[in-house]
Amino acid sequence: MAAHILVLPGDYIGPEIMTEAVRVLEVVNRRFNLELTWEEGLLGGAALDVHGVPLPTQTMERARAADAILLGAVGGPKWDAVERHLRPERGLLGLRSELGLFGNLRPAILYPQLAEASSLKPEVVAGLDILIVRELTGGIYFGEPRGIRVLENGEREGFNTYVYNESEIRRIGHLAFSLARQRDHRVCSVDKSNVLEVTVLWREVMEEVARDYPDVTLSHMYVDNAAMQLVRAPKQFDVMVTGNMFGDILSDAAAMLTGSIGMLPSASLDRNGRGMYEPCHGSAPDIAGEGKANPLATILSVAMMLRYTLANPEAAAAIEQAVSTVLDQGLRTPDIQRAGVEAVSTSAMGDAVVAAL
Amino acid sequence: MAAHILVLPGDYIGPEIMTEAVRVLEVVNRRFNLELTWEEGLLGGAALDVHGVPLPTQTMERARAADAILLGAVGGPKWDAVERHLRPERGLLGLRSELGLFGNLRPAILYPQLAEASSLKPEVVAGLDILIVRELTGGIYFGEPRGIRVLENGEREGFNTYVYNESEIRRIGHLAFSLARQRDHRVCSVDKSNVLEVTVLWREVMEEVARDYPDVTLSHMYVDNAAMQLVRAPKQFDVMVTGNMFGDILSDAAAMLTGSIGMLPSASLDRNGRGMYEPCHGSAPDIAGEGKANPLATILSVAMMLRYTLANPEAAAAIEQAVSTVLDQGLRTPDIQRAGVEAVSTSAMGDAVVAAL
Ligand SMILES: CC(C)[C@H](C(=O)O)[C@@H](O)C(=O)O
Ligand SMILES: CC(C)[C@H](C(=O)O)[C@@H](O)C(=O)O
Repeated sequence: MAAHILVLPGDYIGPEIMTEAVRVLEVVNRRFNLELTWEEGLLGGAALDVHGVPLPTQTMERARAADAILLGAVGGPKWDAVERHLRPERGLLGLRSELGLFGNLRPAILYPQLAEASSLKPEVVAGLDILIVRELTGGIYFGEPRGIRVLENGEREGFNTYVYNESEIRRIGHLAFSLARQRDHRVCSVDKSNVLEVTVLWREVMEEVARDYPDVTLSHMYVDNAAMQLVRAPKQFDVMVTGNMFGDILSDAAAMLTGSIGMLPSASLDRNGRGMYEPCHGSAPDIAGEGKANPLATILSVAMMLRYTLANPEAAAAIEQAVSTVLDQGLRTPDIQRAGVEAVSTSAMGDAVVAAL
Repeated sequence: MAAHILVLPGDYIGPEIMTEAVRVLEVVNRRFNLELTWEEGLLGGAALDVHGVPLPTQTMERARAADAILLGAVGGPKWDAVERHLRPERGLLGLRSELGLFGNLRPAILYPQLAEASSLKPEVVAGLDILIVRELTGGIYFGEPRGIRVLENGEREGFNTYVYNESEIRRIGHLAFSLARQRDHRVCSVDKSNVLEVTVLWREVMEEVARDYPDVTLSHMYVDNAAMQLVRAPKQFDVMVTGNMFGDILSDAAAMLTGSIGMLPSASLDRNGRGMYEPCHGSAPDIAGEGKANPLATILSVAMMLRYTLANPEAAAAIEQAVSTVLDQGLRTPDIQRAGVEAVSTSAMGDAVVAAL
């Protein structure tokens, strides 16, 4: 099926990794006759520099018109002094919210070839394969009222609102349960219902959603315990579902368990399966422009896009297979380098994936 | 100096571990002529069963009158069906709040004798010594408004408020900075200031507090990155300071890095240094009554109490030395057991510490 993709390279290493991802996209497009077209747009700091806002109208319009979005990474020290509502991150948050990309899929997978990169003992992480499903358009990220006000005594007070209604919880619940059906049929819902009322409702609605999936087992865990269990015995999890803030924290911890966050893609889906695809890692200002960035997470984001939005599992599998091949060949960017083996550059890694395809 | 202590054994393994801690207290009291007195009280489920509330007036009054409080652990499945405002945890939260115990100190220390208990590689955690300073009486734990309401469309919505004013932030900041002076002079403040306004204020006030401590270095980290860095390279941290919710999550993750959460004490201090001392672990319903619980975290909480509230570092050091000795002797409760070595019981571990004293 023909489809149109908006490519948003973003900031710092964003353009470098995106160049390689687009090369891979070109190859699979031809090889599988996908009839995909794409165009580039500006988001984050890159947009701010040109248009004075992190999410320009043109980008927003093209994003709405596109079938899928491929994003590099946004943000960095160049825009540290910029006013809060103009920060590069605001562009990303705006896109998520405006497009209704409520379902954030963050797999934490340990590549057997990279087992030694983990800071955890091999037996604790070998074979790790968790899927964190994070709610992405609600919770405390978007809750109102919010701000900083001056109290009567002259002191300032900062405040944010953590809020979820039933439909928001139900929607992300259904996504998590249907994804669990394609995996090990287990969902662990993470909350803090012993303290926070909003997560008491979360837990109740998850129980309700679970009734529609008798073949999936639901368990609940407090967020503090979940953080501990991820460190202690991460393989106990299959799908974890949680709110925006807890999902931000836990998915980063889970990604780091694998030791190779430069390898992990993510998907952010709307209710029709349209989505934005991006690496889990950030814009890595410290290595930008040096050809050191690992393009594999972005390349694997292309695979995720093919699987979830473009319904082409073969093309997705071909990319994943190619990535596995280059790892088998021993190619390593600096982030996943092992002692005594020379690291390859961003573009050399891209070359190798293209060749393996 | 004479002082009076309120002992709150709490629920499940609480009474078992407290018995051993009180034996240790008796020994140091005599040996160092401390003139300490103590009495027992009810908190949590234990209080609920007798008085119908998790924090009875008697307990509250005695807690106010005491110089320090020693707590076992509260909560467990027995009270799962109890109404929310009567849950055992409410007793704990009430005590923290009523006594103004805003400063929660959670050390994450790797005992060299237990290095292999960690799920992390030895080189990543060897020598680990982090102090997490968590704000304990504010933030989203206590913020108003909060609750579950019915919207106009008939749907329910849950909401909580994450709020901090300048003095609350300043107070915990000063505590963290003064503690850093007794350590490696580095404070890392954890926030999510790229998204949450309340933590924009947090970051500003931390900068302001830092000016009073030119000998201490302040850095800032987003909470998602902090969770990653704790997994990747925890030894980069000295003191971490953060709010109630983030502190709950990060301190549990940090504790688990050591692989022996059964070893870690904590202190919750008010503005005068009066405090409540308790193990980092919970009430462990699964092993209650079996003599399997590790009493060392509670015994080390006695040491923390002697150091922070009772200003007796020698007595504190004597207890810590005794714990080190029993570990050297190879004594292990099941939670820190190693393959091929028989585990000892809760009381045998207590006996050994008493003997080592
Ligand atoms: C950049 C930031 C706003 C964002 C978030 O917190 O959601 C990032 O950490 C992420 O997880 O995608
Ligand atoms: C029992 C619970 C309310 C408590 C908390 O969240 O503060 C506990 O997890 C802790 O960290 O002491």
